[in-house]
Amino acid sequence: MLKQIRIVLVNTTHPGNIGAAARAMKNMGLADLVLVDPKRFPDPEASARSSRADDILEQARVVSALEDAVADCQLVIGTSARQRHLSWPLISPRQMAALVKENTEQQAISVALVFGREDRGLMNEELALCHYHVHIPTEESFSSLNVAAAVQVLAYELRVASMNEREIMQAGASAESSVTAGLANQWQSDWDTPWADGDNMERFFDHLEQTLRDIEFYKPEHSAQLMPKLRRLYQRSRLDQTELNILRGILTATQKASRHRAD
Amino acid sequence: MLKQIRIVLVNTTHPGNIGAAARAMKNMGLADLVLVDPKRFPDPEASARSSRADDILEQARVVSALEDAVADCQLVIGTSARQRHLSWPLISPRQMAALVKENTEQQAISVALVFGREDRGLMNEELALCHYHVHIPTEESFSSLNVAAAVQVLAYELRVASMNEREIMQAGASAESSVTAGLANQWQSDWDTPWADGDNMERFFDHLEQTLRDIEFYKPEHSAQLMPKLRRLYQRSRLDQTELNILRGILTATQKASRHRAD
Repeated sequence: MLKQIRIVLVNTTHPGNIGAAARAMKNMGLADLVLVDPKRFPDPEASARSSRADDILEQARVVSALEDAVADCQLVIGTSARQRHLSWPLISPRQMAALVKENTEQQAISVALVFGREDRGLMNEELALCHYHVHIPTEESFSSLNVAAAVQVLAYELRVASMNEREIMQAGASAESSVTAGLANQWQSDWDTPWADGDNMERFFDHLEQTLRDIEFYKPEHSAQLMPKLRRLYQRSRLDQTELNILRGILTATQKASRHRAD
Repeated sequence: MLKQIRIVLVNTTHPGNIGAAARAMKNMGLADLVLVDPKRFPDPEASARSSRADDILEQARVVSALEDAVADCQLVIGTSARQRHLSWPLISPRQMAALVKENTEQQAISVALVFGREDRGLMNEELALCHYHVHIPTEESFSSLNVAAAVQVLAYELRVASMNEREIMQAGASAESSVTAGLANQWQSDWDTPWADGDNMERFFDHLEQTLRDIEFYKPEHSAQLMPKLRRLYQRSRLDQTELNILRGILTATQKASRHRAD
């Protein structure tokens, strides 16, 4: 999927933005960059801001018009501020990613994501070359995103959409599996130590109660809620075996150090 | 929701990144920025890159330690590369946004999102101050995100999660954002007791360490992993104030009962 996606930057003024966009692309697994009539490129500032994503800058194609940049693309999506007049199919970044995933999975097509100028975005005639327009939600009063930041957001949505189930479990990023498994289970599923079983937990709670009596902290007649509260705390923490052993060790050391202990 | 979220940048080297982070925040509707020991701030480069988000830079607080930045926060989430050794509850950006939405909608808590250094990210002791770690999925071979780009991605997920149904329809965002809003830990949002803040948690950890020394259980030279493991356990449990008071009471009683205690 990601190999079929091209990032197109139109009339970028600041080479630093081109470098930052290249870095964002490489971080998210995109590689195909096309620049439409950039003001300054190549430029040391672009290389500096790309921080070792130079390969993407070196392979970048420079063309004179947007038509040339998208000539071989079957799906062209332009980034746009919310439209006031001429309406066009306007989708969210998440819908864009789902649309691209669906299309690239089913056919060997090329997709172009088109980003406009720092100051004025894309012109109407450029937006008219797109099949869809994608809008990144922003604060009404401060809606102009940096172009590299816009590339970062859309490339991130594309990467999340491209991750297969195994990767998603590893990164803990699957909406579906989270809905079924729940947020807690997400990270609990790749915990590095085995979980304590119910039997060991009960022995721990017995040991805890005895120790609290030994140090004269727990007096059942005065604090009926104490043990239930501690049980709730340690149960929801889901102790692993190492943690349980540490807590048992602390209880034993507490009993040893206690003046008041039974024996 | 967005007003309750603080962005914390730790030891940022390049002022341009601080400015770009402020711009990303303002675009997404965030305003509370705290800088932990930045290399150069204030700085003209920060103002330039913020492009009229100067108000956020002017209101930004500068502190000397991460503890101070999160002292009044009840939910602290640190950004992290995938973990290799001591694992911690690791969630995706989308799960992070759902978790923050669930928590801020139902309670007046403060949330901190913590971002590390350009070169080395967050140190282990800084990650240990967090309840959760969030990982932005990246290409294995090129995984280091620019810090402002990381702020942009997480702030974007927070904005999508914060949009109500009407806005979501207007912006054309997929129903998925409302679906994901449902997957956060339910018990955390309808909890009946206020959560402990970072300040009280640090006092608890200090008291815990001192007590373990008093009963001669903790000898730093023998057990470097002990305090990190205990910190991880109690951080992921997310203690409420009543539970914290109970644990502090147990520690005090343990010290009183201890033969070996310092005094």
